[in-house]
Amino acid sequence: MYEDIVKEVYNIVYPRRKLFTAGPVACFPEVLEIMKVQMFSHRAEEYKIIHRDTIKRLKSFLEAEKGIVLLFPSSGSGIMEASIRNAVSPGGKVLVTIIGAFGERYAEVVRENGRKAIELSFELGKAVDPDVLDKALRENPDVEAVAITYNETSTGVINPLPELAKIVKDHGKLLFVDAVSAMGGADIKFDEWDIDVVFGSSQKAFGVPPGLAIGAFSERVFELAEKTPEKGWYFNLPLYRKFNEEKDGTPSTPPMPQIFGLNVVLRMIERMGGKEKWLNMYQERAKMVRDGVRDIGLKLLAEPGHESPTITAVFAPEGVKGLDVYNAMRDRGFELAKGYGKIKEKTFRIGHMGYITREDIKEMLENLREVIKELTKK
Amino acid sequence: MYEDIVKEVYNIVYPRRKLFTAGPVACFPEVLEIMKVQMFSHRAEEYKIIHRDTIKRLKSFLEAEKGIVLLFPSSGSGIMEASIRNAVSPGGKVLVTIIGAFGERYAEVVRENGRKAIELSFELGKAVDPDVLDKALRENPDVEAVAITYNETSTGVINPLPELAKIVKDHGKLLFVDAVSAMGGADIKFDEWDIDVVFGSSQKAFGVPPGLAIGAFSERVFELAEKTPEKGWYFNLPLYRKFNEEKDGTPSTPPMPQIFGLNVVLRMIERMGGKEKWLNMYQERAKMVRDGVRDIGLKLLAEPGHESPTITAVFAPEGVKGLDVYNAMRDRGFELAKGYGKIKEKTFRIGHMGYITREDIKEMLENLREVIKELTKK
Repeated sequence: MYEDIVKEVYNIVYPRRKLFTAGPVACFPEVLEIMKVQMFSHRAEEYKIIHRDTIKRLKSFLEAEKGIVLLFPSSGSGIMEASIRNAVSPGGKVLVTIIGAFGERYAEVVRENGRKAIELSFELGKAVDPDVLDKALRENPDVEAVAITYNETSTGVINPLPELAKIVKDHGKLLFVDAVSAMGGADIKFDEWDIDVVFGSSQKAFGVPPGLAIGAFSERVFELAEKTPEKGWYFNLPLYRKFNEEKDGTPSTPPMPQIFGLNVVLRMIERMGGKEKWLNMYQERAKMVRDGVRDIGLKLLAEPGHESPTITAVFAPEGVKGLDVYNAMRDRGFELAKGYGKIKEKTFRIGHMGYITREDIKEMLENLREVIKELTKK
Repeated sequence: MYEDIVKEVYNIVYPRRKLFTAGPVACFPEVLEIMKVQMFSHRAEEYKIIHRDTIKRLKSFLEAEKGIVLLFPSSGSGIMEASIRNAVSPGGKVLVTIIGAFGERYAEVVRENGRKAIELSFELGKAVDPDVLDKALRENPDVEAVAITYNETSTGVINPLPELAKIVKDHGKLLFVDAVSAMGGADIKFDEWDIDVVFGSSQKAFGVPPGLAIGAFSERVFELAEKTPEKGWYFNLPLYRKFNEEKDGTPSTPPMPQIFGLNVVLRMIERMGGKEKWLNMYQERAKMVRDGVRDIGLKLLAEPGHESPTITAVFAPEGVKGLDVYNAMRDRGFELAKGYGKIKEKTFRIGHMGYITREDIKEMLENLREVIKELTKK
């Protein structure tokens, strides 16, 4: 065995810092342990058991008993593409709400797939205003769907999804939810909120390595998909559904280690007392980070009442760049996240997803206090 | 730590048998070891180093110094879709050569993406006949591209790619090569054979877990892609190229553990004496399997001279089903592959990819001899 080659690569990639990243996030040790299991055929019974069990646990976690839950060998953005290509007619209109970089991506995906994006943008740091959404839908009665970023990773803002969902449904539109940095960290009630498409990724609040996307879809999406031409093969939702139902699998080979990892986390959530307790953990972490940051005298980007449970965007102090804070924290052994998109310069971000303890957060905040003191002295 | 949860899942998925699968195949221990490394941001320098290094090693392995090598968070079929959506005009024609189930998939992908597939099918077990291909191209001068399955996983046949490539190029057509079960096990000379698109997957002859696809593309593909409308976002090749060049990464989050695993294997290949020695290992394994199977008195599906170096399809004896052989071998601790597609009933397959030793092959053949004896006695 070439032990030295493993060491060579390990020495390059092994993270030397405590991780407060925007994703991929630090994974739970239990997950990393299962990642190294030997592979075998994805059509063998052993795989099917875990596939079925993972879908069952996800249905419960997402409260999607009426929904069709599917796994994809892609990143979350793959399902963003799937939502447009399967459920929106060619040339059809989608109202894309934009509160940051990932709303912009949704609009780009709409356009790149030959549909029209009606953009409804809000100031960075703000959530979607329900009244403004309602007005936009009255003014654009011909849109087929509304896209909402549940949790905007670039600004640390969480949208009031239940309220927005109600407005979308009152107008009889399809509801597409990008929950990449929300799923696993913020509640999703698929059936109750009448969602049509919601998707997340393994490498965010579930604390699993990247490579796997998770989607839940309404029956309506499949009815529309049957009529939509040129859906393509790779993100053909009826095909995924067929393979899920008939073979407990995916049309092409799935990222098995990540699926095993997700299964482990879903079992851990159950053991820890279920979804509510798990989501409370996320709320507590987020509050701890926000309180600590404010105590240092820093300002949050997110408007009050819409702060994300999974990531906090912070303004660097006057005269200091976000990147300087990021770099100084890196030197001290903490990997935060850089600012993202248009506010890259002025902000830095603190992710609080995955394998993070209260002690890690305390230690990070103590170091952040010192870093800010040093940087503002200069 | 919930050690017991890891054990629970491990006990379901842990492969109890020696693997001769069609993929995912048994991974090298070195690869499994790196799969469990802790995650971190894919935009951090540590990731970029491995990304760059992996691309560099792949360029050399594929002899694609002029080609653009890219990594994708998808299965190999994703790049099948990318080839059509980026380089073939909407409604344009593709000549799809079909020698088994994966050629059929290529035709399906062509159609599902709104292009026309001209199918050129050959009897199962046969390779593409160069003269027939030449004739088809003379009769269809308006096709834009020719799709060839380098190694057909369902029949265990390898196509004479250099010869076929020359014909395609003599007709001035684009050459798309599905090398999913070939890459890493059969030689690919991207520049010399003037390939336009070739793709493979992590979980086949490289012996890495599934979730990662590898593609090499000609400059011509990017020139065409710039003009092709509605390429979509997820498999937009110019976007992948931009992120590869400017950020040493991918547009959305890549399957990092699999990329680290692939990097480990590429370093192992170098250490073992380079590509030629590595491919010789595959040739030797394949010959050992073929000789053994023939010695038992069984017939191969592949026509002589076109036997695959990565997988061998075998006819079950008269009156015995392929599935019976598969099941009997499973009971003895060997996971072979079931027959696939139209010849599912009559055949079984023996994969010889990934982490397999000469001793494993000997032991498998001894057991196969006994199994065939038992099944034909009844």
